[in-house]
Amino acid sequence: MGNLETYRNLVNLRLEQLFAQPHDGRPELLNDAMWYSVKAGGKRLRPCMLLAAVDMLGGDVSEAMDFACAVEMIHTYSLIHDDLPGMDNDSMRRGRPTNHVVYGVGQAILAGDGLLNLAFETMLNASSRRPERAAQDLLAIGEIAKGSGVTGMVAGQCLDLECERNASMSGVDVLEKIHEGKTACMFVYPLRAAARLCAAEEETLSALTQFGKMYGLLFQAADDLTDVVGNSAEAGKTLGKDAESGKLTCVSIWGVEGTRERIARLQKAAIHALDGFDARADFFRTLAEKAAQVS
Amino acid sequence: MGNLETYRNLVNLRLEQLFAQPHDGRPELLNDAMWYSVKAGGKRLRPCMLLAAVDMLGGDVSEAMDFACAVEMIHTYSLIHDDLPGMDNDSMRRGRPTNHVVYGVGQAILAGDGLLNLAFETMLNASSRRPERAAQDLLAIGEIAKGSGVTGMVAGQCLDLECERNASMSGVDVLEKIHEGKTACMFVYPLRAAARLCAAEEETLSALTQFGKMYGLLFQAADDLTDVVGNSAEAGKTLGKDAESGKLTCVSIWGVEGTRERIARLQKAAIHALDGFDARADFFRTLAEKAAQVS
Repeated sequence: MGNLETYRNLVNLRLEQLFAQPHDGRPELLNDAMWYSVKAGGKRLRPCMLLAAVDMLGGDVSEAMDFACAVEMIHTYSLIHDDLPGMDNDSMRRGRPTNHVVYGVGQAILAGDGLLNLAFETMLNASSRRPERAAQDLLAIGEIAKGSGVTGMVAGQCLDLECERNASMSGVDVLEKIHEGKTACMFVYPLRAAARLCAAEEETLSALTQFGKMYGLLFQAADDLTDVVGNSAEAGKTLGKDAESGKLTCVSIWGVEGTRERIARLQKAAIHALDGFDARADFFRTLAEKAAQVS
Repeated sequence: MGNLETYRNLVNLRLEQLFAQPHDGRPELLNDAMWYSVKAGGKRLRPCMLLAAVDMLGGDVSEAMDFACAVEMIHTYSLIHDDLPGMDNDSMRRGRPTNHVVYGVGQAILAGDGLLNLAFETMLNASSRRPERAAQDLLAIGEIAKGSGVTGMVAGQCLDLECERNASMSGVDVLEKIHEGKTACMFVYPLRAAARLCAAEEETLSALTQFGKMYGLLFQAADDLTDVVGNSAEAGKTLGKDAESGKLTCVSIWGVEGTRERIARLQKAAIHALDGFDARADFFRTLAEKAAQVS
């Protein structure tokens, strides 16, 4: 088992291969716009979790690499579209101008579309090189598609947007639906894809699903809390935006202390979901501990 | 072999099943926004061509249905995003307000993202129900992904947008690259997917590829010509937009008569590509004849 840095280096290396000098004839401008945002990526949490899960289940990390990169492409496309005018209208992300500020709204829309499509292309290409495992690969790609789709991430973003424009949509149920969709699904389904790639048993699949969900909710709760109590320089982004825009967040519902309690509870639940795994799951236990640390 | 109407009815029936009352828990607003544009669809040319090719090659049309519907979803998403401010900024399509006019820019972006993702989900779901054909299905989905992706449709749209903003990009080579990408690819690759679903031989694959390319260029040349000489009521859209915006089109390069000649030449080439097929390819021969009729 590696640590986060080991996996991140592998992911970055493969992303570099996929974007730095593509030889498939894609337009240069399109590739530049996609790579601009992919390159700016942070911790590569989601692809690393997929690789770590494959590793933990005894699978081949290098064979899973293109699935991991696809997950990062999907995550990146969602950020590009999320930042657009008409969505969050953000002009800075990770300390750099957002995609549409640099390339214009039209090209940013296409860069996002291109990344979502390329994610599938990348997984399908990898799979077509090993037809003997086609059935397993189909299930794995299906998990990613479900996670990023109209009952997953896109659903969460739709509700989030609807909620901002409709004051009558509020409360714990709405919040949890939004956080599950827009945040937790992109942890849950990459983990499920890893399990599919390893032909893992149902029990493993459901333990990873539960961990992913608890971790995702924890991650979002910590993000909500950071927006209120965090330090902008450390967080690498403008804070205080949620309260300013009257957004429905953990803090708007439970307050600062209540959110801290929620974080502690979710951390425990995430770690509890891993009870059936031995020390090889320590990668995930550490992740949950780190995610819960909001100063 | 059916005719266009037979296949269209089948496609519409299945699309209705997939959108009219979905039971997968997707947000109602998201489904409404997607269905609004899918429902407004016209001739369903692309999915019908996929089904007709499967039929012609002796495959099972009903087994190919979800692939056909996926193609229509991808076509629809591209129209929703194309109409957005920042892209073509169109407020009417097929006689109705465009998606973002009705649902707002943010939800229209998400409706497009949702449709692209749902296209893959739909194909992957269909494939996972028949694991014994997984390897073939992977290749078929891979063809669709390539057609709609960063070397296909998205590439064409990127170049088209770049070209509008950059007067130094012009000439026949640029035009053909744009038309191949944004128009022909979504004919070529669904046909290739049909061939994959039927495990057709290389020769069939390349004949259909050639037909799709010639047909796509023909289709776009006819569209360009209609914009100049057509009747708005018949065409169901505002005409004269291309000339007004100084867009690079067949007419801007070859003039009206030159474009008519190009259309005749492309029609011949499309039909010639089908020489190896018997009367079962008449569906496609008729399509090429009809596409060439611009009054």
